[in-house]
Amino acid sequence: MKVCHQSFEVKSSKRREIIDITKRVEEIVSESKVENGICLVFLPHATTALILEENEPRLVKDIEESIEKLFPAKASYRHDEIDDNADAHLASGFIGQSRVYPIKDGRVVRGTWQHTLLVELDGPRRREVFVTVVGE
Amino acid sequence: MKVCHQSFEVKSSKRREIIDITKRVEEIVSESKVENGICLVFLPHATTALILEENEPRLVKDIEESIEKLFPAKASYRHDEIDDNADAHLASGFIGQSRVYPIKDGRVVRGTWQHTLLVELDGPRRREVFVTVVGE
Amino acid sequence: MKVCHQSFEVKSSKRREIIDITKRVEEIVSESKVENGICLVFLPHATTALILEENEPRLVKDIEESIEKLFPAKASYRHDEIDDNADAHLASGFIGQSRVYPIKDGRVVRGTWQHTLLVELDGPRRREVFVTVVGE
Repeated sequence: MKVCHQSFEVKSSKRREIIDITKRVEEIVSESKVENGICLVFLPHATTALILEENEPRLVKDIEESIEKLFPAKASYRHDEIDDNADAHLASGFIGQSRVYPIKDGRVVRGTWQHTLLVELDGPRRREVFVTVVGE
Repeated sequence: MKVCHQSFEVKSSKRREIIDITKRVEEIVSESKVENGICLVFLPHATTALILEENEPRLVKDIEESIEKLFPAKASYRHDEIDDNADAHLASGFIGQSRVYPIKDGRVVRGTWQHTLLVELDGPRRREVFVTVVGE
Repeated sequence: MKVCHQSFEVKSSKRREIIDITKRVEEIVSESKVENGICLVFLPHATTALILEENEPRLVKDIEESIEKLFPAKASYRHDEIDDNADAHLASGFIGQSRVYPIKDGRVVRGTWQHTLLVELDGPRRREVFVTVVGE
């Protein structure tokens, strides 16, 4: 049984932005040589989120608008008295900053439309993606 | 240490529908003979979600209404220009397509009211449930 | 490879309340002697949630208000005909009752602002927090 960690950096260029990290995550799983197990994708940040979603440009816009509807950038947040990112914290905490995939026969098990999307909520910033593979 | 994968199929009969998969998940854990570890329940789909929730008929209706309130079926989604299921993608991505349970002494650790509910968001369809048990 | 379970109790004093359990979770990881792996924090309850979030008093208020906005306590829920906590079930199921951390070199990998916050949604009550560490 093996545990393999790897991390990589992603650079966002806007306040809210959706960045597809599927390819790098799957390379890390492949490099781990783990044939069967699980893969945890974890963001060590409280103002980003992870979703598994179709990476279709219109849908990406819909996701951004849904985030604005559910967690509006401008509302009378108390936290904004000291830092201007309460909306980013709320979306990040509620949607979550990690997802877990099964690994079977050396490959990530996922649906065709389940791309791993990093949701930047308080960019532009450099962000770390932490990937842990556990298996054999 | 063992890794056991099993999958099964669920057939939905409506566009939005909540289907209790608790029993089959727990049978898979039991069949794995894993005494201590974790159990990942994963849907390889971007238009379904998983929630752990009381399976009470009135509450099931409330869940469906809450989904409609937060992710309305009819809104001016851009993705609907090419495919009529943006609401399903949004609910799926935000709620999430997986949940993880502890396994202790050969049994899934869960609260009495934590049934494993598959939330169909774009049925009717055949759906796959993928269960990975890791432990010893 | 080791699997270590530990649980502890948290007592809430209000209907909705946010309780920081970071310290106890990290002590359990330390006591497990697992150097590399993952840590599942799981609540065996359908009316609490877990979020990883900055524990800043103003933001904690914003989280409570965002929960009220998305899952209002008083609405015409069907489940409230038999039990007065549909809002708690909805927030719990959608936000989720677990989170998973990587463990690297004996420590939980997390961002500075990612405290483990138990969100009580139907207190006051005694709640159990179940922690499972898998690794080596």
